[in-house]
Amino acid sequence: MKTEKINALFGQDLNVVNIGLESFAENLAKLETPVTQVEWKPPAGGNAKLVKLFDRLDEAEAAGKLDRNTANQEAVGRILKGKPTLIGIGIAKDVVPGMHKKLIMHAGPPVKWENMAGPLRGAVIGGLIYEGLAKTQEEAEKLAASGEITFDPCHHHNAVGPMAGVATASMPVWIMENSTYGNRAYCTLNEGLGKVLRYGANSDEVIKRLRWMEKELAPILKKALELHGPLDMKNLIAQVLQMGDEGHNRNRAGTSLLIRELAPYLVMLDEDKEKLARVFRFMHENDHFFLNLTMPAAKCTVDAAAGIEGSSLIYTMARNGTEFGIRLAGMPDRWFTGPASEVDGLYLPGFSAEDAARDIGDSVITETSGIGGFAMAAAPAIVKFVGGTPQDALNFTRKMYEITLTENDTYQIPAMDFRGTPTGIDVVKVVETGVLPAINTGIAHKDPGVGMVGAGLVKPPENAFQDAFEAFVEKYAR
Amino acid sequence: MKTEKINALFGQDLNVVNIGLESFAENLAKLETPVTQVEWKPPAGGNAKLVKLFDRLDEAEAAGKLDRNTANQEAVGRILKGKPTLIGIGIAKDVVPGMHKKLIMHAGPPVKWENMAGPLRGAVIGGLIYEGLAKTQEEAEKLAASGEITFDPCHHHNAVGPMAGVATASMPVWIMENSTYGNRAYCTLNEGLGKVLRYGANSDEVIKRLRWMEKELAPILKKALELHGPLDMKNLIAQVLQMGDEGHNRNRAGTSLLIRELAPYLVMLDEDKEKLARVFRFMHENDHFFLNLTMPAAKCTVDAAAGIEGSSLIYTMARNGTEFGIRLAGMPDRWFTGPASEVDGLYLPGFSAEDAARDIGDSVITETSGIGGFAMAAAPAIVKFVGGTPQDALNFTRKMYEITLTENDTYQIPAMDFRGTPTGIDVVKVVETGVLPAINTGIAHKDPGVGMVGAGLVKPPENAFQDAFEAFVEKYAR
Repeated sequence: MKTEKINALFGQDLNVVNIGLESFAENLAKLETPVTQVEWKPPAGGNAKLVKLFDRLDEAEAAGKLDRNTANQEAVGRILKGKPTLIGIGIAKDVVPGMHKKLIMHAGPPVKWENMAGPLRGAVIGGLIYEGLAKTQEEAEKLAASGEITFDPCHHHNAVGPMAGVATASMPVWIMENSTYGNRAYCTLNEGLGKVLRYGANSDEVIKRLRWMEKELAPILKKALELHGPLDMKNLIAQVLQMGDEGHNRNRAGTSLLIRELAPYLVMLDEDKEKLARVFRFMHENDHFFLNLTMPAAKCTVDAAAGIEGSSLIYTMARNGTEFGIRLAGMPDRWFTGPASEVDGLYLPGFSAEDAARDIGDSVITETSGIGGFAMAAAPAIVKFVGGTPQDALNFTRKMYEITLTENDTYQIPAMDFRGTPTGIDVVKVVETGVLPAINTGIAHKDPGVGMVGAGLVKPPENAFQDAFEAFVEKYAR
Repeated sequence: MKTEKINALFGQDLNVVNIGLESFAENLAKLETPVTQVEWKPPAGGNAKLVKLFDRLDEAEAAGKLDRNTANQEAVGRILKGKPTLIGIGIAKDVVPGMHKKLIMHAGPPVKWENMAGPLRGAVIGGLIYEGLAKTQEEAEKLAASGEITFDPCHHHNAVGPMAGVATASMPVWIMENSTYGNRAYCTLNEGLGKVLRYGANSDEVIKRLRWMEKELAPILKKALELHGPLDMKNLIAQVLQMGDEGHNRNRAGTSLLIRELAPYLVMLDEDKEKLARVFRFMHENDHFFLNLTMPAAKCTVDAAAGIEGSSLIYTMARNGTEFGIRLAGMPDRWFTGPASEVDGLYLPGFSAEDAARDIGDSVITETSGIGGFAMAAAPAIVKFVGGTPQDALNFTRKMYEITLTENDTYQIPAMDFRGTPTGIDVVKVVETGVLPAINTGIAHKDPGVGMVGAGLVKPPENAFQDAFEAFVEKYAR
């Protein structure tokens, strides 16, 4: 039998499998010899400094100084056990810890006014006008630069915000509670598409809509929610993944389920019917309405993992348009950042890559929690929005299993035989494999005041992960 | 090069590919010789009578007596061009052609009272009580058997009905118009799950719900629809296929989209808020509410193909629990029937296959139009409901391309790279390949008055298709 196989081998045409330097394969290919290049990289890309850090990590684990596996299982276990529950709506200054009139929250890691990207500046200007702290753009810019205003990441106040993520004291926010651990997360209500604050627009139309949201939309939804009682967001997110949403850039199913869930209670309110119709129409006309619910749901879920000593789980990813940053469960207060990336995307008519701001927003908290880009295989229709094929969507999700700690036990992907979504990013795996988290996102105009120009896919900066890894080793393997 | 390949062949282990009698392959397999059996059947299963009919068809086409291809392209072209549009709600006796107080419409091909299956009898009894024509079950049975009542298929009155499909004079019906061709289709409003008339239940609870639907639900929805204006069902169905529905056994996305579409208009009505809340709650609690819209949408779409001379397209499939029947575009008034099949399914707790009625309902009009089971790949979550894997769902859809005339240009399947659904069943292809249409369905209890017991997959009887084929050849190839 064996001899037969050897005979067969030498009787056949030559087929080469090349492991290692691609140039060998390229030369053979030039000679028209069939060759298969194995996609293999040395750990950490063979980077000598990183390899040393891996050795230190291994030694610390071998010496019993660190039990990363136990810590990570605890961290990701908390993510799985989390039960995000929508419990109400409040005004930011009344409910968000530390919120005050002269504080502006923004997306991403900390950033100073002078370093802020165009869309974030535009949103800050809009926020100051909306709060009545400035009357004109010029006044607002002056005030922003004066030092009188405090700028803080949403993430420093248990909050998240899409794109610019600007939230001010008078804005209404969703109140999300992780009913397993009791921690809360907050997020403004979604404004819709087109000219909106979160994409850096700040015209009268934008401010007027924000006021209507504060005075009419939020109070009505708040009362309906009170009648309804707490809303199980975990269940809703599990459902929308069966309905073509991934909870970040596609939220059509989620918005639909929210409307039908609240409708019987909305009509029971003693409200003018024109007002109710406006509320229904506003939600109906904006398929991203549900995004501002998946975000705080994800936030309160992953926050329960923060502070677990020895865990290399990434519990925050966020961008402010200037920098991308992450935080680790084992060193929860420290940001590791790199320059915000350019987005590889599709543009709205009249716009091109030249108009694009860099990657911005806290919405990547969805990916951090195991949905969004990580669940892209559940939302093949989205590939038309960000450019690509349904096969790409499957590949994106499959790749993410390489850098995550577990498969979700509730969030499942029908097209992958109901496999759980890749959940809980491990910075050690990211650095080891060189596989970066898959993020899909909207694209804002680079200048203040313009708005959305497109959508696409983005690769976060590798150095943020490498720096976090290094700091992790320094802390836990010394 | 060639010599090398021959050497390679003889140097290798023997691999057998067997085309034809499977027993050859089985014997080789016993000897542990690797063997691949080609799945191949002679046309029409080698049936001599059918082979002769195929010869006659070929001769007629060669002689220019029949241009089946042109006729079928016209027929399926009409299906693609159809634009089902929801235009209103009316009371059956006011809007359904030929409807009167003593007429009961039912699902499937014609059937006499004495031959009706349990669930259909149960629904007829309920219908007579609901109409006030009988006070008790006994009275109703007597009246049904007296000859005073006319029983007609829904399909003879431009209507369709799920499961038993019973519709009586006072029932409200959706009015669907094919805005391209002007023809209309009608269907009652969906009652929900559990004990409902369409599954043969007829208790006081069932009758009371039907009265509420007539007096409160339908008038309110009718007024909301009038405010809204015509609703583009083609667009909605295209969307739900991107959201995990297939429009037959999964309608969660469709029901959600309908609710959000109508909500801004429902709240504008001068109606008591408790009534509006009941309407919202009724729709919200029944994910099949949208089924009774996809059915007449499908019906008015395929009906536009009826009467095209020389077309072998199947424009009707329907079951009454006793028989399954089809009608062809080229001979539109004639039913070809076979015994209704047993359903291969999953049962609700406390029930088994012994309790099951046979295949029943007009809902297979969805498959006839290119959605439902034919679009099962769009609804992988449904496989849990009918038993199977997401791969089965893909296979079901793929198989249906073998018996259909075209791929839909509007209804697409994301998981198949947005390929159009297999649309327009050709009876000639069905008989030639032996591939029967894939249908998924609910299962009613075999006795009157019980209700739903499960759901599953069903194969229609082959002889209905063979008889239709024979009649087609007799008519067009003589």
